Amino acid sequence: MNDYKEQLTEAARFIHQNDNFLIVSHVNPDGDTISSSLALAHLLKDLGKSFHLVNQDEIPKRFQFLPLADQIQIMTHMSEKFSAIISVDVADRSRMGAIDSLMYDHTKILNIDHHPTNDHFGDVNLVLPTAAATAEVMYDLAHQLQVHFHRDLATCIYTGLLTDTGGFRYANTSAKVMRIAAELLEYGVSPSKIAEITLETITPGHIQILKIALSKLEIIEDGKIAWTFLEKKDLPAKTLHDETEGIVNYCRNIEGVEVGVFFKETDDQVIKVSLRSKNIIDVGAIAKSFGGGGHARAAGYTFHGSLEEAKSILRHKITKDEGWNHLGNEF
Amino acid sequence: MNDYKEQLTEAARFIHQNDNFLIVSHVNPDGDTISSSLALAHLLKDLGKSFHLVNQDEIPKRFQFLPLADQIQIMTHMSEKFSAIISVDVADRSRMGAIDSLMYDHTKILNIDHHPTNDHFGDVNLVLPTAAATAEVMYDLAHQLQVHFHRDLATCIYTGLLTDTGGFRYANTSAKVMRIAAELLEYGVSPSKIAEITLETITPGHIQILKIALSKLEIIEDGKIAWTFLEKKDLPAKTLHDETEGIVNYCRNIEGVEVGVFFKETDDQVIKVSLRSKNIIDVGAIAKSFGGGGHARAAGYTFHGSLEEAKSILRHKITKDEGWNHLGNEF
Repeated sequence: MNDYKEQLTEAARFIHQNDNFLIVSHVNPDGDTISSSLALAHLLKDLGKSFHLVNQDEIPKRFQFLPLADQIQIMTHMSEKFSAIISVDVADRSRMGAIDSLMYDHTKILNIDHHPTNDHFGDVNLVLPTAAATAEVMYDLAHQLQVHFHRDLATCIYTGLLTDTGGFRYANTSAKVMRIAAELLEYGVSPSKIAEITLETITPGHIQILKIALSKLEIIEDGKIAWTFLEKKDLPAKTLHDETEGIVNYCRNIEGVEVGVFFKETDDQVIKVSLRSKNIIDVGAIAKSFGGGGHARAAGYTFHGSLEEAKSILRHKITKDEGWNHLGNEF
Repeated sequence: MNDYKEQLTEAARFIHQNDNFLIVSHVNPDGDTISSSLALAHLLKDLGKSFHLVNQDEIPKRFQFLPLADQIQIMTHMSEKFSAIISVDVADRSRMGAIDSLMYDHTKILNIDHHPTNDHFGDVNLVLPTAAATAEVMYDLAHQLQVHFHRDLATCIYTGLLTDTGGFRYANTSAKVMRIAAELLEYGVSPSKIAEITLETITPGHIQILKIALSKLEIIEDGKIAWTFLEKKDLPAKTLHDETEGIVNYCRNIEGVEVGVFFKETDDQVIKVSLRSKNIIDVGAIAKSFGGGGHARAAGYTFHGSLEEAKSILRHKITKDEGWNHLGNEF
C-alpha cells in the first residue's frame, strides 16, 4: 500500500513535469477505459495542461454522453507525435493498438491501470490490482493532485466504477467503491441517467437477436446447464459485437442453472463459445482446456468444428468437472 | 429532520417498552418490506425481545435466502393475538392485509415506512419520505438502538436498499444510500450473491413469456414508442405475477424510445397496461386519465375493451401529450 502511495507521487510528478499529453485508452474500448481517460482529461484540464485523447477504435454510442467524449480521436486520423503518453486501463503495450507512429524514441509512458496482469510496461507505473476499476485509481490520483471535484469529473469516475462492477453487481464491488460512489453523487452525478444510458439501453438489433436466441434456448442435465446458439444465418450482416453480448447471461441466470453457454457461429466450422457459471464449476479451466481463457465464473474459447460437436464435447467436459457432483443451492 | 430524530427516539422507546412483537410486512411482498422486517427481527433478537413475523402472502423464492426468512408465517395460519405490532414498509393500514384477527382492541402499532403517501396510521410513526427504502430507516433505527451490526443484519438492510433502488439504478439512489451500502459491505455482505439471487435470477417461465413478448414487440411513431402484448392464451395457467414483470422495460430500454408499454390481457376485454418513460412524457398523468396511477416515469391502468382499442386510444393519448413535441436525446 505504501508502494501505491509512492506510485501516486511519481504519477503526479510525471503529470506536473510534462505537458501536451497523449491519453490512450485500450482497443475495443469499454466503459472503464473511456471514463477513466476522460476523468484524466478533466484532471489535466483543471491543472492547465493540454492533451489529446485517442483510441484505435470507435467509441461505443452509449459512452458518447460522457463530458469530453467528443474529443476522442481515432488513432489513424492523427499524425502528430507526443513526448508524454498516459495509457489508461491498458494491461500491456499491445492493448494500446498501433500507437508507434505517434511516439518518438524518447517518448515516456505513464501506465495507469488496475489489471492484475499489468506488466508494468510504463516508464512510470500506477497500477492497483485490487482496484475494481481504473476509475478507482483515477479517484485516488485526483486526490493526489488536489484538484477540485466537479460534476463532469465525478460523472466520468462514477461511470467507470459502475460499468466495471457490472452495475455494482460483481464480486469486485468493495466498500471503497461504494464510498467513492457516495462521494461522487454529492457532486450532482445522476446515477439513474448514467445507468440507463450505459447499462440499460438496448438496440433494436439486440432485441431481434435475443428473440432468436431465446427460441433456441435449451435447459439440459437436470436443469443445471442452459445453452443457446446463433448460427451465421441468424446474424444480420450489420450485427455489432455488442448486440450478442449478454445473451449468455440469460442462460446462466435461469433459476437452478449452474452453467450458461452461448455458442455463436462466426464462420463455417468456427464457433465462439461463451461460458458463465454461478458457484462451483470453474469455466475458466474448461475454456483453457479448449485453448481459450477467462476466469472461474466467465470464460470463452473458439471451437473449430460443427455446432453439434461443440455442444456434445462441451457437455461431456462440464459434467466430468470435479465440481459437478457438488452442485447445490448454497448462498 | 429534527422531527425525524424525535420519531427515532419514540420508535426506540416503543421497542424498549414492549415485547412479543408482531412484525408485519405488506401484502404481495417485495424486497424492501421483507428485508426491512427481517432487519427489524435481527434488531429485536439482539435486544433480547421476542417477535413473530407475518405476511398475508407467500414470500417470493428469491427472498427466502435472507436470514430469518424461514420464520415468516402466513397470516391465516396464525391464531395468537398481539399487543404490539410493528408494520414495515406499509403505507396504509389496508396494506397489512387481514390483520384484525391478530389484534386486541388495545393493540398499539409502530408504523415504520418511507412512502410519501404514508398516512401515519400508527400509534407511533417512524416515516421518512425522503428515504430510498424502508431499509434506510431501519439502518437509522439500528443506530438509534445502538445495536452491533453483523453480517445477517447488514445483509437484510443491504437487500432492501438494493431492491428498492432497482440495483442502485433509480433516481432515489442517494449519497446516503451509497454510504450505508459501503458500511454494510464492511460486515461481510456479498453484493454479488445478493444481486444474483434477488435481481438476476429468472425463471424458465419468464424465458417462455419473454420469448413470446419479444416476438410481438412493435416500434412505432418514428421509434419513440415501443410496445408489446400478451394475450390470455399466451400465458401458461401457472404464470406467476413476477414472470411478466420487467417485460415493459425491454420496450422502454430500446435506444431512442421514450415510452415503453406492455399490454397484458388478464380476462376477456380486460387489459392491464404498464407504462414506462425515459425523460419527458408524464406516463403518470396518462395512466391517471384512464383511472390508473403511478408516477411520471412508471405507471399503469386497467383498460376495459379490446387490445386494438387499448392500443389506438393510448397511442393517440401519448402523441397528444404536451411533451411529445419536445422529445430529444438530452442527457
